[in-house]
Amino acid sequence: MEHQPRAAWRDKLHEVIFEADTRAGQWFDIGLLVAILISVTVVCLETVEDLQSVYGVWFYYAEWTLTVLFTIEYALRLICVRRPLGYATSFYGIVDLLSFLPTYVSSIGFGRFGSFAVVRSFRLLRVFRVLKLINLTSESEDLAGAVWRARGKIIVFLAVVFITVTIAGAAMYEVERIHDPIETQFTSIPQSIYWAIVTMTTVGYGDIVPHTTLGKLLSALLILVGYSLIIVPTGFVSAEAVESRKKRKALTQTCPYCMAEGHLSDAVYCRLCGKPL
Amino acid sequence: MEHQPRAAWRDKLHEVIFEADTRAGQWFDIGLLVAILISVTVVCLETVEDLQSVYGVWFYYAEWTLTVLFTIEYALRLICVRRPLGYATSFYGIVDLLSFLPTYVSSIGFGRFGSFAVVRSFRLLRVFRVLKLINLTSESEDLAGAVWRARGKIIVFLAVVFITVTIAGAAMYEVERIHDPIETQFTSIPQSIYWAIVTMTTVGYGDIVPHTTLGKLLSALLILVGYSLIIVPTGFVSAEAVESRKKRKALTQTCPYCMAEGHLSDAVYCRLCGKPL
Amino acid sequence: MEHQPRAAWRDKLHEVIFEADTRAGQWFDIGLLVAILISVTVVCLETVEDLQSVYGVWFYYAEWTLTVLFTIEYALRLICVRRPLGYATSFYGIVDLLSFLPTYVSSIGFGRFGSFAVVRSFRLLRVFRVLKLINLTSESEDLAGAVWRARGKIIVFLAVVFITVTIAGAAMYEVERIHDPIETQFTSIPQSIYWAIVTMTTVGYGDIVPHTTLGKLLSALLILVGYSLIIVPTGFVSAEAVESRKKRKALTQTCPYCMAEGHLSDAVYCRLCGKPL
Amino acid sequence: MEHQPRAAWRDKLHEVIFEADTRAGQWFDIGLLVAILISVTVVCLETVEDLQSVYGVWFYYAEWTLTVLFTIEYALRLICVRRPLGYATSFYGIVDLLSFLPTYVSSIGFGRFGSFAVVRSFRLLRVFRVLKLINLTSESEDLAGAVWRARGKIIVFLAVVFITVTIAGAAMYEVERIHDPIETQFTSIPQSIYWAIVTMTTVGYGDIVPHTTLGKLLSALLILVGYSLIIVPTGFVSAEAVESRKKRKALTQTCPYCMAEGHLSDAVYCRLCGKPL
Repeated sequence: MEHQPRAAWRDKLHEVIFEADTRAGQWFDIGLLVAILISVTVVCLETVEDLQSVYGVWFYYAEWTLTVLFTIEYALRLICVRRPLGYATSFYGIVDLLSFLPTYVSSIGFGRFGSFAVVRSFRLLRVFRVLKLINLTSESEDLAGAVWRARGKIIVFLAVVFITVTIAGAAMYEVERIHDPIETQFTSIPQSIYWAIVTMTTVGYGDIVPHTTLGKLLSALLILVGYSLIIVPTGFVSAEAVESRKKRKALTQTCPYCMAEGHLSDAVYCRLCGKPL
Repeated sequence: MEHQPRAAWRDKLHEVIFEADTRAGQWFDIGLLVAILISVTVVCLETVEDLQSVYGVWFYYAEWTLTVLFTIEYALRLICVRRPLGYATSFYGIVDLLSFLPTYVSSIGFGRFGSFAVVRSFRLLRVFRVLKLINLTSESEDLAGAVWRARGKIIVFLAVVFITVTIAGAAMYEVERIHDPIETQFTSIPQSIYWAIVTMTTVGYGDIVPHTTLGKLLSALLILVGYSLIIVPTGFVSAEAVESRKKRKALTQTCPYCMAEGHLSDAVYCRLCGKPL
Repeated sequence: MEHQPRAAWRDKLHEVIFEADTRAGQWFDIGLLVAILISVTVVCLETVEDLQSVYGVWFYYAEWTLTVLFTIEYALRLICVRRPLGYATSFYGIVDLLSFLPTYVSSIGFGRFGSFAVVRSFRLLRVFRVLKLINLTSESEDLAGAVWRARGKIIVFLAVVFITVTIAGAAMYEVERIHDPIETQFTSIPQSIYWAIVTMTTVGYGDIVPHTTLGKLLSALLILVGYSLIIVPTGFVSAEAVESRKKRKALTQTCPYCMAEGHLSDAVYCRLCGKPL
Repeated sequence: MEHQPRAAWRDKLHEVIFEADTRAGQWFDIGLLVAILISVTVVCLETVEDLQSVYGVWFYYAEWTLTVLFTIEYALRLICVRRPLGYATSFYGIVDLLSFLPTYVSSIGFGRFGSFAVVRSFRLLRVFRVLKLINLTSESEDLAGAVWRARGKIIVFLAVVFITVTIAGAAMYEVERIHDPIETQFTSIPQSIYWAIVTMTTVGYGDIVPHTTLGKLLSALLILVGYSLIIVPTGFVSAEAVESRKKRKALTQTCPYCMAEGHLSDAVYCRLCGKPL
């Protein structure tokens, strides 16, 4: 982080664009939020034929206006940030770039306009930036932290789910094919695994259902096993959440002698210097 | 809150209508609960054609009888309350007004009777008033409090869900349209987002389902991601509930000497310093 | 509980039938469990036409054999219990009676045999009796206790669900009818409420689905609201479970001077006599 | 565990195959993981007709190559393990055997190749072995431990579910048959029980749905009861998880003077008696 002398306007601009402490910075964030939501709404509504045939031209103008605005914003960010390359290659830098690039690319003839809908919808990720506006940064860090600390258990859990649905899928493929090899809906093991995932997570579309008695029995078993499995990680995330609440509360008690923080709430003596709290 | 001298009968009336401490107040609440339930049942059954053609006239009489009773009740509330305007503009004041107004409005010719069914069903909200009858006020405050304290995390969570379903919806729209642009069920991105919400929350109607292999793969991925996401706020509400239980218990006993909290309710001496509580 | 002198064989019989402490009592319970499971299996399989046409006569014999055994068991219970009337009018007394009565009633001509299937399936409730065999009584009391302590919150929660589905049902009825009053699947408000329950609890059969854009929007909203609502009681039951675990553990610490139990695990002094633990 | 003198290469081999402490052992585990995943992918893709007709011969070669490798691996395990018979009859020994045996069996003519898909998919269970590679053994033990400690409650819960679905199934069978005995989807009680399981766990395929008013009412009731039931074990697994977190933390620090548990890991003095830890 080299500290080169910088023009005051660049510091000011940085404050407006990257922070939400000043009035101007807050208005910038609100404007950005509105622009993102409008542009994503346009991306969505463009694909509704009835609306596209009537308001298509307005959608076109809105898309280009917002694209130009996003381009200017990206340029301003590049200018005012201390390390432009670092920003450009960061997660949000790439998301910011993807918020206007697809429109230009599609306009110079690479395929039809609509085919970039997915890439264009990525701009919605920029909403996370605006969370700092309403002081939700610590909340989202709490959520992310609980998931992160429980990651080991989530991986093990997903491995168990993965193994269960594969074996259940293979079993259902065999069982349903014996009964009626022509009209079975379990046409292949990947198809059966798709069914097993849809079933075990209790989504239950009903596009693929067992038709044989043994298939229904296996299905009921998978549902019950799956249901019992799925409550386990819930419990562990709960435990992490309980823990993180306790830790934050515990951090409030501070030793008046050595200023050590993080004493348990019922502590009588400082755990570092031994003096009474 | 000005204290003007008031007639004794108005105080008495207030006690009966707004409190549930006296025998009369309890009977009033029970009567009100029964009236609300009957009137909502009538609103529902009116729309069943078989019943309407046979019992329609009874439904009509019941509706008008209850409407008149609710009107009288509203007038009495206005009379006995200290600040009628404050009551009339409060949440329950408006709900009370809406419990009889639609019937009058529809009778003087504004549209057909049935079209106010939604507004008329709002009267069910008055049931919350009667919760005080069975001492459930503190319980509902606990529930509301847990949701309220977890509101930040719920907003972040809903933002994550909102962003995920939009991107997933756009992706599925593209993927399914490539395979079969005519017969795809993912006719537009809003339609795809509706599918993504139905899928990620494990409702899974099955009215819209992926038909391509890539679509099924994406779908399975969304289900697993969605399922993992959804357990997180559950954990945090659990943590809040554990906390609120502890806090309520803690409020019963604190040592006056060492300020240690969390003594059991029958404790005579502090468990940490040994001094009497 | 009058203490009349009783024959030793009646005490012995009581021990075998009602307790699971002795070897004989355990064998009796295992036999009873097997008899219940066989008899309920017969009730179920009788309704499968393919099996009934082939094994019908065996089902008939099995049903009658078990009915006679259940009758004898009921008579023995009446004989060996101290207060026969108290037993006969208790919950399990009635369940025991219902385990054989329907077979006799149907045999003397009241309707066809199958129409008592529901009543006959009640005998499955007797399985709870056998839980004492595998030391699960305290476990089931824990579960029942957690539900019981959270009953207030469950009632409030069910009231909220009830009100939400009624208002959502009325709204969907109006919305979907405007679009297509003839072919709408939301034919009446009760039907819409059924849809709202199926949707909000994430069952999502898909037999009734919204067809209008506004209907789908409302539906997505109900799903998200419903989903957020439903996590709340989970959290409170978790809190109750955490609490009940803690209480049981806390009960282990006992004051060596006054024998008072239930001290918190980090207690230094007895909370009742003030002496060190 | 007799300690006979063993050749150094067998100890070395044992270290590579059974442990993940050495570099060689880690590479072996990674190779094994890749081989398992490829072989299971082949088992799945073989059943997709379009792929089988084009790449069938490659699938055949891949299957035989991996089968030979698994055979060699099994032989090496038998050689380097101290008690070959103990290994061969252990859970993983059987899983290892089943990972190559079906291919040989099917090649010497017992039925068509595909019919061993289920048995062949069992080799996926070997993935659990590789969890030690990424230090997830303690995580999976935590998960298994929480389920194990809550086993009593899970059994009671499954008993309640089992009894509820049977009674609900019998009731729906009767109710729906009265209305339309010919076209009812509830053709038998086992079929109705399958419906009840699918409904109560909120899977909700929609292949079987109630068509009568009473059936829909019963269905809504079952959904609400079922939903309320299902949150209970979640709470208890949460409690177990909270407990197991606490226990592990408690194990790090206990005061040697006053035996107070739960000191923070950086504590130098006991927070209750002030003496050094």
